[in-house]
Amino acid sequence: MSLSPSVDRPRLVRLHATDNVGVVVNDRGVAAGTALGDGLVALEAIPPSHKVALEPITEGAAVRRYGEVIGWARRDLPAGSWVKEADLDLPTPPTLDSLPKSTAVPAPGEPLEGYTFEGYRNADGSVGTRNLLGITTTVQCVTGVLEHAVKRIRTELLPRYPHVDDVVALTHSFGCGVAFDSKDVQIPIRTVRNLARNPNLGGQALVVGLGCEMLRPEQIVDREGAGADLGDSGLYRLQESQTGFAGMIEQILAMAQRRLEILDRRRRETCPASALVLGMQCGGSDAFSGITANPALGFASDLLVRAGATVMFSEVTEVRDAAHLLTARSETEAVAQALIDEMEWYDRYLERGQSDRSANTSPGNKAGGLSNIVEKALGATVKSGTSAIRAVIGPGERAQGNGLQFCATPAGDFVCGTLQLAAGMNLHVFTTGRGTPYGLAMAPVIKVSTRTDLARRWPDLIDIDAGRIATGERTVLELGWELFHYYLDVASGRKKPWAEVHRLHNDLVLFNPAPLT
Amino acid sequence: MSLSPSVDRPRLVRLHATDNVGVVVNDRGVAAGTALGDGLVALEAIPPSHKVALEPITEGAAVRRYGEVIGWARRDLPAGSWVKEADLDLPTPPTLDSLPKSTAVPAPGEPLEGYTFEGYRNADGSVGTRNLLGITTTVQCVTGVLEHAVKRIRTELLPRYPHVDDVVALTHSFGCGVAFDSKDVQIPIRTVRNLARNPNLGGQALVVGLGCEMLRPEQIVDREGAGADLGDSGLYRLQESQTGFAGMIEQILAMAQRRLEILDRRRRETCPASALVLGMQCGGSDAFSGITANPALGFASDLLVRAGATVMFSEVTEVRDAAHLLTARSETEAVAQALIDEMEWYDRYLERGQSDRSANTSPGNKAGGLSNIVEKALGATVKSGTSAIRAVIGPGERAQGNGLQFCATPAGDFVCGTLQLAAGMNLHVFTTGRGTPYGLAMAPVIKVSTRTDLARRWPDLIDIDAGRIATGERTVLELGWELFHYYLDVASGRKKPWAEVHRLHNDLVLFNPAPLT
Repeated sequence: MSLSPSVDRPRLVRLHATDNVGVVVNDRGVAAGTALGDGLVALEAIPPSHKVALEPITEGAAVRRYGEVIGWARRDLPAGSWVKEADLDLPTPPTLDSLPKSTAVPAPGEPLEGYTFEGYRNADGSVGTRNLLGITTTVQCVTGVLEHAVKRIRTELLPRYPHVDDVVALTHSFGCGVAFDSKDVQIPIRTVRNLARNPNLGGQALVVGLGCEMLRPEQIVDREGAGADLGDSGLYRLQESQTGFAGMIEQILAMAQRRLEILDRRRRETCPASALVLGMQCGGSDAFSGITANPALGFASDLLVRAGATVMFSEVTEVRDAAHLLTARSETEAVAQALIDEMEWYDRYLERGQSDRSANTSPGNKAGGLSNIVEKALGATVKSGTSAIRAVIGPGERAQGNGLQFCATPAGDFVCGTLQLAAGMNLHVFTTGRGTPYGLAMAPVIKVSTRTDLARRWPDLIDIDAGRIATGERTVLELGWELFHYYLDVASGRKKPWAEVHRLHNDLVLFNPAPLT
Repeated sequence: MSLSPSVDRPRLVRLHATDNVGVVVNDRGVAAGTALGDGLVALEAIPPSHKVALEPITEGAAVRRYGEVIGWARRDLPAGSWVKEADLDLPTPPTLDSLPKSTAVPAPGEPLEGYTFEGYRNADGSVGTRNLLGITTTVQCVTGVLEHAVKRIRTELLPRYPHVDDVVALTHSFGCGVAFDSKDVQIPIRTVRNLARNPNLGGQALVVGLGCEMLRPEQIVDREGAGADLGDSGLYRLQESQTGFAGMIEQILAMAQRRLEILDRRRRETCPASALVLGMQCGGSDAFSGITANPALGFASDLLVRAGATVMFSEVTEVRDAAHLLTARSETEAVAQALIDEMEWYDRYLERGQSDRSANTSPGNKAGGLSNIVEKALGATVKSGTSAIRAVIGPGERAQGNGLQFCATPAGDFVCGTLQLAAGMNLHVFTTGRGTPYGLAMAPVIKVSTRTDLARRWPDLIDIDAGRIATGERTVLELGWELFHYYLDVASGRKKPWAEVHRLHNDLVLFNPAPLT
């Protein structure tokens, strides 16, 4: 990656030697007539994070960024002109039946040893970065009662259990009124089951059900396995109440207290960095995402993989147009095929809804200089670093083993975050260009800004400013290491990201492709 | 409807002269050998609210309840035998292209005049039963921040505005990461728009957006119409914040305060009962639903229609098998056709998800004696009373005019409640057999139990016990009038149903048939 060496304006970023467009990284863009270096002059005003033609591009020719074709020129684009969405024809996506499989598997990096964090060890071998009392639900009917109970648990019980960080209600809109005969319904069912097993909940959440709902408690708690230590005392159905609302609250509080006694005896222990399960995501992206924050995440991801950790990247529609790069990087042909299968399933799912992947890009993405989903995909993929892809996790499934893994989720921030939590995520990192106050209750969320301007305006929301890469204050390598150390600090509870400080929690959103009835 | 006159056990209910099954309404069912009257003897133990053959039914013959075929006997069913789900073959649903249209339109009932309630008049002509500050959202990204702000509004601002009942955040998982090119996406968009205009929010909610999301504020607030008095001061986008999280909270609080000043000047005024917009729903249903609670709701519904009010019943899959009765009752052929169109759309929606209407019945329904969706549908339809159906409301649309209307929604409790709120509902009534603590933040919810046992066990959740119809303590007519008066009391704020007392609020659930991206 070539970065202009000076922090003086104007600044232009060209990511690959074959690119014929660069990105303006000045906070306010450049005026018409501005000299952009190497004899290039801006022919018109170009907004920040938008693209400029580095050389004359003739109508029909390829427009290249990240060394890849992001579109075909719809008109002649003289050198120095602003290259906008309307100037590009969308390339056809890679056909799924002709993708290269494991043709460019990167060699494993040198093992990175000796890095540790302080975590909570669970019976199933997983490690929590927080010690949370989780209470999950089989159906939305119980939410009002449970939220009432959770308020009382937080104010009346929690102060007596100082080693427990918080109580979390895993509420959702699934569980009844859904076509349980549809094959797709397995996705939300296994998501609810695996969310309840998230490492930050000590391995198993309590369960509050109603009694007559379609989703049965036995579908979400394996009483032989993770739920064994809960026994029947870890489940309560509201319809069992013989004394109304008061009786329900009393029973939930009693159940919570039994669990708090157990959780409060736990202490942090030194664990290898390999016990981290990091979920990576980007949201409110702009053209800086692929230049600053995502490359830094990619570098840190490679470090974590070398340290033996599990690192997940996600968002099927956001990597769909970079599928050929991912299948080539897949460790085995079976992994490449699993990736193709998930993408094929998603193509069909969108078709069924009379849609396609082009629906992904938001107005904010476009205002931020991302012309189309191809350009967005290439930038999004950068955060996966350069490691081999070791496994593919279906939506709602739990990750097995370590290394870099693709967790096949929709791209919406909260459904992706929810599915990464179900996969076992114990730490989350989120890059944003336009800015979002994203937070989750079940795992600490680290927010990385793509631009310094955002970090300056939102000092109490942005944890790490990757915009310093664009200004030349940091290299990708330096910021990658900074992130790596920050991950270990946050995982250990030594540092709290802003979302955790403010208790900014967005609701879980399940991915339910099955129809409502 | 024939009810056994005595409160002594055993009790059996036969609803129609042509029925060949009756329903056991004793709290504990009946033992084998119990004499059931008219020479009928129970051949086996029959659980409460389950069906008994009143006469011998031969294999292949029709099994009738509500005077309609609920199934075909799979085996010979001697008189006195328990008729279970496994004994019935599901009838094929009425074909939508051969339904009778407006062939049995009931004559209008005698107008019922002079009934009033105390409500809050809105500029658009609608009337609120509560005076709530509503704050809606364009996208889930803002939820964490908004909930933080709402807590502060409730504790710091509300005490200074005693005429405002509460503050409600209209949060949802829609707004971004959704296929905005799908035709179906109009359903959640109009739902969010119409929710913000609910009469209980003074006609228009404030809006908190992020800034880069797909759902634009102008899609959900009509600044020329209902939103005119808000001006630009009724909208805030978090990405406008120049001072981070602190600035966001400050701006939302300032906006809320401006709106609270206006809402606090409002007073209840005497309004005709015709200003009521009642939404009816049932959930956690059992075989008593169609005998006690739903008939009482039906009678009260007829009273409200005669008083000029708007009364909505819903749940497409729950009335699908009674479609022929509804199209015949439709006031005009156009209304009948609109009903058919909604059912046709829903059939296709389920097909697309490889499902059908039989997926509706829950395990709890079946344990409660409802053998299949046909029986459930006939019982559910009873709550619509006997009035002509004047209009059909598409999912997310706002009701126009008064009278009995079919609001075409899925049957899940919360998605149905949400769509009825979008239709303009200012009062909600909910019947339950198995028991559920259902509640909504935007409208008072009255809960009616189908059995006395439930009302006894849950005295602080059930507002009206319709089980008294089964015990002979009340007639359907008496309970219907009791409900009618209770509706007016609750609408006036003179009485508060239990869900409101406990602030039991379930989240809004949007109906989004479009795929996630």
